[in-house]
Amino acid sequence: MTGNGVLGVAVVGAGYWGPNLIRNFLASAEWNLVAVCDLDTERAAQVVGGRADVTVTAVLDEVLARDDVQAVAIATPARTHRHIAVAALRAGKHVLVEKPLADSVAAGRELVELAETEGLVLMTDHTYCYTPVVQRIAELVRDGSLGDIFFVDSVRINLGLVQPDIDVFWDLAPHDLSVLDYILPGGLRPEGVAAQGADPIGAGRSCVGYLTLPLTSGAMAHVHVNWLSPTKIRQMVIGGSTRTLVWDDLNPQQRLSVYDRGVDLVQQSVDRIDRRTASISYRLGDTWAPALTEVEPLGLMVAELASAIREGRPPRTDGAAGLRVLSVLEAAATSLRARGALVDVVPTDRPELELVR
Amino acid sequence: MTGNGVLGVAVVGAGYWGPNLIRNFLASAEWNLVAVCDLDTERAAQVVGGRADVTVTAVLDEVLARDDVQAVAIATPARTHRHIAVAALRAGKHVLVEKPLADSVAAGRELVELAETEGLVLMTDHTYCYTPVVQRIAELVRDGSLGDIFFVDSVRINLGLVQPDIDVFWDLAPHDLSVLDYILPGGLRPEGVAAQGADPIGAGRSCVGYLTLPLTSGAMAHVHVNWLSPTKIRQMVIGGSTRTLVWDDLNPQQRLSVYDRGVDLVQQSVDRIDRRTASISYRLGDTWAPALTEVEPLGLMVAELASAIREGRPPRTDGAAGLRVLSVLEAAATSLRARGALVDVVPTDRPELELVR
Amino acid sequence: MTGNGVLGVAVVGAGYWGPNLIRNFLASAEWNLVAVCDLDTERAAQVVGGRADVTVTAVLDEVLARDDVQAVAIATPARTHRHIAVAALRAGKHVLVEKPLADSVAAGRELVELAETEGLVLMTDHTYCYTPVVQRIAELVRDGSLGDIFFVDSVRINLGLVQPDIDVFWDLAPHDLSVLDYILPGGLRPEGVAAQGADPIGAGRSCVGYLTLPLTSGAMAHVHVNWLSPTKIRQMVIGGSTRTLVWDDLNPQQRLSVYDRGVDLVQQSVDRIDRRTASISYRLGDTWAPALTEVEPLGLMVAELASAIREGRPPRTDGAAGLRVLSVLEAAATSLRARGALVDVVPTDRPELELVR
Amino acid sequence: MTGNGVLGVAVVGAGYWGPNLIRNFLASAEWNLVAVCDLDTERAAQVVGGRADVTVTAVLDEVLARDDVQAVAIATPARTHRHIAVAALRAGKHVLVEKPLADSVAAGRELVELAETEGLVLMTDHTYCYTPVVQRIAELVRDGSLGDIFFVDSVRINLGLVQPDIDVFWDLAPHDLSVLDYILPGGLRPEGVAAQGADPIGAGRSCVGYLTLPLTSGAMAHVHVNWLSPTKIRQMVIGGSTRTLVWDDLNPQQRLSVYDRGVDLVQQSVDRIDRRTASISYRLGDTWAPALTEVEPLGLMVAELASAIREGRPPRTDGAAGLRVLSVLEAAATSLRARGALVDVVPTDRPELELVR
Repeated sequence: MTGNGVLGVAVVGAGYWGPNLIRNFLASAEWNLVAVCDLDTERAAQVVGGRADVTVTAVLDEVLARDDVQAVAIATPARTHRHIAVAALRAGKHVLVEKPLADSVAAGRELVELAETEGLVLMTDHTYCYTPVVQRIAELVRDGSLGDIFFVDSVRINLGLVQPDIDVFWDLAPHDLSVLDYILPGGLRPEGVAAQGADPIGAGRSCVGYLTLPLTSGAMAHVHVNWLSPTKIRQMVIGGSTRTLVWDDLNPQQRLSVYDRGVDLVQQSVDRIDRRTASISYRLGDTWAPALTEVEPLGLMVAELASAIREGRPPRTDGAAGLRVLSVLEAAATSLRARGALVDVVPTDRPELELVR
Repeated sequence: MTGNGVLGVAVVGAGYWGPNLIRNFLASAEWNLVAVCDLDTERAAQVVGGRADVTVTAVLDEVLARDDVQAVAIATPARTHRHIAVAALRAGKHVLVEKPLADSVAAGRELVELAETEGLVLMTDHTYCYTPVVQRIAELVRDGSLGDIFFVDSVRINLGLVQPDIDVFWDLAPHDLSVLDYILPGGLRPEGVAAQGADPIGAGRSCVGYLTLPLTSGAMAHVHVNWLSPTKIRQMVIGGSTRTLVWDDLNPQQRLSVYDRGVDLVQQSVDRIDRRTASISYRLGDTWAPALTEVEPLGLMVAELASAIREGRPPRTDGAAGLRVLSVLEAAATSLRARGALVDVVPTDRPELELVR
Repeated sequence: MTGNGVLGVAVVGAGYWGPNLIRNFLASAEWNLVAVCDLDTERAAQVVGGRADVTVTAVLDEVLARDDVQAVAIATPARTHRHIAVAALRAGKHVLVEKPLADSVAAGRELVELAETEGLVLMTDHTYCYTPVVQRIAELVRDGSLGDIFFVDSVRINLGLVQPDIDVFWDLAPHDLSVLDYILPGGLRPEGVAAQGADPIGAGRSCVGYLTLPLTSGAMAHVHVNWLSPTKIRQMVIGGSTRTLVWDDLNPQQRLSVYDRGVDLVQQSVDRIDRRTASISYRLGDTWAPALTEVEPLGLMVAELASAIREGRPPRTDGAAGLRVLSVLEAAATSLRARGALVDVVPTDRPELELVR
Repeated sequence: MTGNGVLGVAVVGAGYWGPNLIRNFLASAEWNLVAVCDLDTERAAQVVGGRADVTVTAVLDEVLARDDVQAVAIATPARTHRHIAVAALRAGKHVLVEKPLADSVAAGRELVELAETEGLVLMTDHTYCYTPVVQRIAELVRDGSLGDIFFVDSVRINLGLVQPDIDVFWDLAPHDLSVLDYILPGGLRPEGVAAQGADPIGAGRSCVGYLTLPLTSGAMAHVHVNWLSPTKIRQMVIGGSTRTLVWDDLNPQQRLSVYDRGVDLVQQSVDRIDRRTASISYRLGDTWAPALTEVEPLGLMVAELASAIREGRPPRTDGAAGLRVLSVLEAAATSLRARGALVDVVPTDRPELELVR
């Protein structure tokens, strides 16, 4: 199925995000954009431009019936992901799904299991993970430059569009959670989730939200998402035992800073009175800002999709990653209903699924 | 109560904070520094310099027995506040206590009630409340410039000294909480407290902490305190229905910004499908950075203490304010033991106490 | 010629800048893009897309011969501007020219005079002048918010592409000079120009440059342009007698700040010894950051071109403006050859030309 | 005279700067503060505090007559430096002079020559050169980290006190020039000086100033000093062939950044048409912010003075350094009178003087 030839892809959904996928599939030498499917065919035709070799249709089955389509990329509202993805997987197509993977853990799990059963690639479009800065952060975590992760603090606030059907957690936190899943060793598997939300404007859903995610070994991740802030902040601090990094996404001149500073617990002192203080040591070292290339993240993502299909392996942001993010979002919703109590995250892995990774 | 003459004051404790109080009492025309009391009389003598008119002593009772001492300022470790303040109040002295007011709500309450009974002024040294920037913020809240408070997000992170006996909440959060108490109409009276803490370095106490404080009408305050961050942030965002302000304490060139931007819920639309979106409106207005005077906050504080004594009224940061901060800290400790569950805050007011305010 | 109907335009040059003009003429309801002319017709056809109603040609005369072309927009290299613009004006077409207007003052003057003689509109594409921030700055200067202009300091530095045929002055300074011309009352008419340039890498032309422009009444403008700086700065400070503004183009969150601070010379003191100091007073007032709309500058520019044609008046960035910028650039080149001596600027106005303004 | 014992010093002038010198001589184990001399002996006594072992006097000759005074530190107005320093040198004392060394090149040269003749140390108090950041910059230049210096751009602007007797060049530029002298290999020896000044408020002297200093090999230094800017900037960019550094003195969190980015002229291409472009290459590397210690610069300076005396060598900021700064300031004044023409700098070195270095 997956030789070295160019792969055919169909994009379903030509609304907000679809055009970005279309542009990147068109620009890739590994992909051949075969069809675009949208109920609004006029919109789809406009996005495709005058290209005669791209079919525009409103009928999903037409797309799925084609032999020259190896993969389907879904960029429709989250509540429709399950239906479309199931149909595509049953038709033997590899599937890329815009985040979030689905609108519930149950739906997401069904997709992951179906892809597993069918031996097909299921990928979640966690775009941020393919940005040069996140790629670099992942390298720094993986190669031990940070040491053990002590804490992660992520802030994503802005005067945002209050969404009609989802709260600020479902709107913004998938970005932070997908990055956490990408960079934390073993993926995002918190020991629980606590969520606090506020709706001071009476919008009917949280407009200000805080997520607390205890991690193993006493570490903690925390996410602040906010639609009501007139100042824009997109910043993530990742504190490690060896170094700490700050990703300030709104500072293009120094997006990533690595601080060779920190606090160490050197040894247990025997001094009875002040034993803790004695055992702490501070490092005050240099700061280092790695140069980052300018690469289109979606270009990297469609390349990874092609490689995963060809090599018969899960892509880096696979369905399981999407499912882990979903499970945190769903636990957060439960915590909100429990006035912010720490709730367990539904385990997303089955042993069989793990084997694939 | 005490005429218009110069007031006599004794400072107890000449360690870390005492010298600042001593300097400001000396510089004030309303105060006469009469005595400094510290077990380490050598240290005290050094701080006093060669001034012959200031008694240095290690014996508290000597100080309290003097007729020329109207007020006692206590700058000793928190666990000793109760004992010293009770003695001073019983001796008929007005009392100023370094924050936190005491090391427990019970101790704090005893001080507040004793001062009430004795008809004496009890003041908490919430220094930040007397900075020009917080004074200006309080004015903006009071005069309605912000409208209703929607959310407050406070971040105070830095590579800080891990304390031997208190966690990061007790070390840093009193600053944020005292400011909240000062600027929120009616003081800091959250509907509950949830606290999440992390100790990734094994220090034996929280080094990273988050406080969530639901306020009335769906509003929320949130505090992030952190000893382990190599970057220093001291920022408070106060979102209101009319305007939002950002206090960035590390930006001396623009410490306070007022944004005439926000999100309004204009009206309830009747559109069944998408009724919430229809009712949101965005404002994108000017930003304004008020000029701030350069004033020593402690100078303003000792002047307020003198005025309160002369006018027989509670000072702006009175014992009750200190007690409200204490009660949040104690509730946070309870929440920590309950894995971050939202816990009630012990009510700090009795009807009689309220009459004083 | 200048009724209310849609105006026809042809764009000459489809290289770097032409596509931006094409896009904006296409998006404007006041313009009808009739033709695109480029020697590389393949490139031109690609930019035009599949639009059947836009002629693509390599022959300028074809374009100029058409009755449905009222205006010609020129986006070719500067050395070709004169030839193309002269042909267009002689053919009775209004002309828009990409900056700089021409490659010499003589050529620019010829264009201005020819347009005047023919009674046609000649406009220079000083794009920056149509940005929301510069529009706002011009308003603030015009309505007296700044008072008299005391000094202007403009910095435009970056790791830039060393150009093969022009130095850093001709490459970058037209931006600063066109803005100065737009906002200074009466346009940019300095009392002289001094230019210092450095070529430390041996590129054969200045890579670092400083322009000093004494203005009337003791004021001064200064421009720093630099291709060799690894940090990017685009900042203009305009100091006035009443207020001072800072335009920081790389700070989208607060691009424009107006400071109500300054130094005044209040009165002449009679104190013989220290008479100057006595007469200086300082104001330390608020800062104000006006909200700026998000508007495409080129859209505003093509609208201004249409209005000028219809109303038979010079556009805001007319040929004379382009000529004033040119004359400063040419004087700067002269100053460079004179080791930075202050040289006069060739007067660009003739009385007849002035009448038009 | 220059054994290993503690050295005796007298400070002349207890006004603005003298107290800083006094504090640092008192804190140093290498120095014994013997006397403070000021016409206002009350002021001097106040600065000295109650120290019985420090003589306070208004009579310079008393100080110079003492055997226990090896060095005299002069912190009086610049116009008095010559007289006091000459007297001190003639009395056989080593001399430290606050910047600027004197109020004219002639006076400065007399001091340098006299010190040389007498075999005494003459040091200029160029305080900035002893800050950790400038020490680090000097190391980076010396060890070749920057490669050849291409350009230096220094900006020092603020709402400053308009001085009654000196212009903005003499008030602020000595800081920038002394740093340039310290870090440039061989000291500050520009090929000329051009100065442009503006006095838009009618203060009677330049309030806005620009200095251009062509250096050898096509490099250039430029200094912008300004009393009228409501925003405060203190920034120096030093561009080198290998790396470029930015010193932002108002950013305590990252005062020094070293950019491994730049433009290189790789080789002369033979392409006739576009030969220059072909030969330029760009590097886009990491940024690095060295950790800086917190050290009191004046402590380092008085230690250097002691070492120089003991070792019989010129100190790092010797009289010749002060004279080079003076000669640039005087040339700038000449340039100002010549409408900004590039003027030569009076050579400050005689062969004999050079031998000392």
